[in-house]
Amino acid sequence: MIKVILLGGGNLAFHLTNCLLDTKNIQLVQVYNRSITKIEYLKSKTLITNNLEELKEADIYIIAVSDDAISKISAQLNVKNKLVVHTSGAANLNELKSISYKGVFYPLQTFSKDKKIDFSSIPICIEADSKSNLLLLEKLAKTISKSCYYINSEQRKKLHVAAVFVNNFVNHLYYIGNEICDKNNIPFEILLPIIKETAVKIESLSPFEAQTGPAKRNDLKTIKNHKTILTKHQKEIYTLLTKSIYATYGKKL
Amino acid sequence: MIKVILLGGGNLAFHLTNCLLDTKNIQLVQVYNRSITKIEYLKSKTLITNNLEELKEADIYIIAVSDDAISKISAQLNVKNKLVVHTSGAANLNELKSISYKGVFYPLQTFSKDKKIDFSSIPICIEADSKSNLLLLEKLAKTISKSCYYINSEQRKKLHVAAVFVNNFVNHLYYIGNEICDKNNIPFEILLPIIKETAVKIESLSPFEAQTGPAKRNDLKTIKNHKTILTKHQKEIYTLLTKSIYATYGKKL
Repeated sequence: MIKVILLGGGNLAFHLTNCLLDTKNIQLVQVYNRSITKIEYLKSKTLITNNLEELKEADIYIIAVSDDAISKISAQLNVKNKLVVHTSGAANLNELKSISYKGVFYPLQTFSKDKKIDFSSIPICIEADSKSNLLLLEKLAKTISKSCYYINSEQRKKLHVAAVFVNNFVNHLYYIGNEICDKNNIPFEILLPIIKETAVKIESLSPFEAQTGPAKRNDLKTIKNHKTILTKHQKEIYTLLTKSIYATYGKKL
Repeated sequence: MIKVILLGGGNLAFHLTNCLLDTKNIQLVQVYNRSITKIEYLKSKTLITNNLEELKEADIYIIAVSDDAISKISAQLNVKNKLVVHTSGAANLNELKSISYKGVFYPLQTFSKDKKIDFSSIPICIEADSKSNLLLLEKLAKTISKSCYYINSEQRKKLHVAAVFVNNFVNHLYYIGNEICDKNNIPFEILLPIIKETAVKIESLSPFEAQTGPAKRNDLKTIKNHKTILTKHQKEIYTLLTKSIYATYGKKL
């Protein structure tokens, strides 16, 4: 049984809390959040507090707060000889201040409160300041997920920016697709199958192999036509990404 | 039974041919392609030809060739009082030259030869020059797919550019994510679950609601850090898309 205390009340903290409560061999001892109202729904399931001095004993303390708050909250923690980890993709291991045993437990996924998520398929990227702490963290990761990776702080930063490309920026392109559909009385649902297939396709082909479309096949006529129907702002994005696809396949625009 | 003749040998033609061969109540009478070697694998299953003058009788002739070739091939067709359709998202209905009964049969999906595809979930966008031709086309569409939409030429152009955003451009962002992983010895497979979840999430949330990440939450520190680790070319795309997300959520960069 691994005893865990979780600190935070945001999207990731919310989903991770529910996952820890539901996972065998893990005991979620307590949840801390600055605002107690945000975690009051947990009252019947575990201890809750908004006072860092009231923290109980646990094997691992998980700080799942915004990147800016990690150093502040860790500096206030009074935890001796126990592992303290943060969950950020962008923050260094050493953002954990005045902590004796440090680690990172970064679940690489997009979390929204209104969308249920299955932790068992989320890759957990772990890092720690010692072999024994890494093993403890690995045990926790493997209890809740099928996939766990050793990723150091430098790699994690790169992975995080890669995730911004394939998640935030991709979602923004969905948003633009939605915008174009709405403006032309086309139901956005028509695009859902191609969106899904685009994502699934790269499980069997590399993104380089999977590419299709006017930029890849050098179809200048279609590209020119497309530009005439876009807003200035959409056209800017269209032009830059088209150029980038051209460059990838060795052509010049 | 709907009798169909298919013209073309590219990615879409390949998958559509296989689908038509496998679908009950459809008889694929013949396949035409300029290069006969490309369609020789069909010899045992249907008639094949590389000569437009040898075309047989059918209810619907499907021209599944590149946009540039549609007008040329349709002008050479000697088909009277039978429906001739093209399959392009970008080409107008009137690209079909010297054809008496015209239509468009546009399956909105991304096709690569090496990736199997299930037509039953592909939205088929149809258009025709008369009510009776539209009904015949609808019958064909509904025989092979669960979803069929009436989309006119103007709408189809808009839908096609929207598909470029959510498919070609999205795939290119996957490519950049892959590039960043490769350069830093990170297995790209770590990104597959977030890629899939990003696509699936918008089946229950709108892309506007689904957005997360540093640009959305105004996290200037992370954005600044990210920019230091990107190549010039990646940074250009990062900056433009970050600005665009800012603009979407009413913030200024």
